[in-house]
Amino acid sequence: MSNVITFYDIPSKVPGVAWSPNTWKGRYALNFKGLPYKTVWVEYPDIEEVSKKIGAPPTGTKPDGSPFYTLPAIFDPSTNTAVSESIRIAEYLDKTYPDAPKLLPGGTHALQHAAINAYLPTGGPALQFAMPATHRILNAGSEHYFRINREPLFGKTLEDLTPTGPERDVEWAKVKAGFNVVDEWLQAGEGPYFLGKTPSFIDFVVGARLFWFRAIFGEDSAEYKDILSWNEGRWAVYTEGLKQYETVTV
Amino acid sequence: MSNVITFYDIPSKVPGVAWSPNTWKGRYALNFKGLPYKTVWVEYPDIEEVSKKIGAPPTGTKPDGSPFYTLPAIFDPSTNTAVSESIRIAEYLDKTYPDAPKLLPGGTHALQHAAINAYLPTGGPALQFAMPATHRILNAGSEHYFRINREPLFGKTLEDLTPTGPERDVEWAKVKAGFNVVDEWLQAGEGPYFLGKTPSFIDFVVGARLFWFRAIFGEDSAEYKDILSWNEGRWAVYTEGLKQYETVTV
Repeated sequence: MSNVITFYDIPSKVPGVAWSPNTWKGRYALNFKGLPYKTVWVEYPDIEEVSKKIGAPPTGTKPDGSPFYTLPAIFDPSTNTAVSESIRIAEYLDKTYPDAPKLLPGGTHALQHAAINAYLPTGGPALQFAMPATHRILNAGSEHYFRINREPLFGKTLEDLTPTGPERDVEWAKVKAGFNVVDEWLQAGEGPYFLGKTPSFIDFVVGARLFWFRAIFGEDSAEYKDILSWNEGRWAVYTEGLKQYETVTV
Repeated sequence: MSNVITFYDIPSKVPGVAWSPNTWKGRYALNFKGLPYKTVWVEYPDIEEVSKKIGAPPTGTKPDGSPFYTLPAIFDPSTNTAVSESIRIAEYLDKTYPDAPKLLPGGTHALQHAAINAYLPTGGPALQFAMPATHRILNAGSEHYFRINREPLFGKTLEDLTPTGPERDVEWAKVKAGFNVVDEWLQAGEGPYFLGKTPSFIDFVVGARLFWFRAIFGEDSAEYKDILSWNEGRWAVYTEGLKQYETVTV
């Protein structure tokens, strides 16, 4: 297993449980293509050091202008290449392993780019609920990092960010409205996925956010069950079909 | 010619010159599929009556809750069907004329829906410049209708809405930023169009907005030339390739 791809992910309190709505996009991609890989778990405060070590490029810029490193990232020993950012990983894998199923098939690359840009502002599954709750499932080092990097952006503690009381109902209705928007797009196609029966990269973007919600609140939570009941149960079909790509190879 | 599709469009002061960023999507669609059609020109105040007469459904709701009718619309005598809204027209034409080139090919329907939702907020070509200038090219009846329906939304006359002085530079920079976003998506693909060498419906959405700008300000205006120079001239290539679909059959 020493010459397989290494996938860099952020751990949770439960060993082997992947949760991140960003890294899941990369893991879904590897699983979908059926490529062997191993996971290296990296706590938030160590992402920069590990990325530099493997040569994964930064994906953004910090407020002070210095480079910002994020996961997912992969290192592929067969080409001696490190890649960061999930869509770049998808592009790399499609190019390097053209015989495996395509993540961005049939020239849909530009369309997927645009469609992902339309999807993200819909809020995905309950951004305003999942984000402030994420810290609960993190190990101490990552929990501290997550908190000190998120709380100043909102001027509130993560605990105070969670909508409660009547505000909760208002925010939950917004979540539902976001799902309605995406469902309307999907209904225009053959379904259940954007390109029909087989998921493609954009479905893993959507699926990763749904997985995140499930990882935090649990499959049996009233909220998750609520989501699966929306749009005539189509989200239950959608998530069920993605389960075959949810193996966590450690 | 009595049994060809009728295409309903909004006239300008120059007979035979189509200009609308909405109706052009439908006209591009007919031209791209190579279907014979004739044009019926309808001034803004007459759209509701004409739509009801041919049986084209409303596409929205007015503030008072009554149905709102818009163009483009088509009437196809071969199926005795009226269709309104450009994407519905594209769907209808793909379904009814499956042997002609596909506007929404290869199961990309849902992706195109989403991608169009990402494109529209980028502002397209200079929404803040083209919208307040549109009234200049309209006939009196439509000009009045356009003015009384737009001005209350902004609390300004159309003349006062046009950015001038230092504000103009700020707004023009925003226009350029919007083009950069779309160019980045397109660059992810094979180009020059979203699905590669052949345009599809989303390209006609983009093209219709570019046509609108050109119809108002002219191909030789400094602004239009500026746009064509952006992103290493890729918009010049983009618009050039659409010209073969710009015949106005009257």
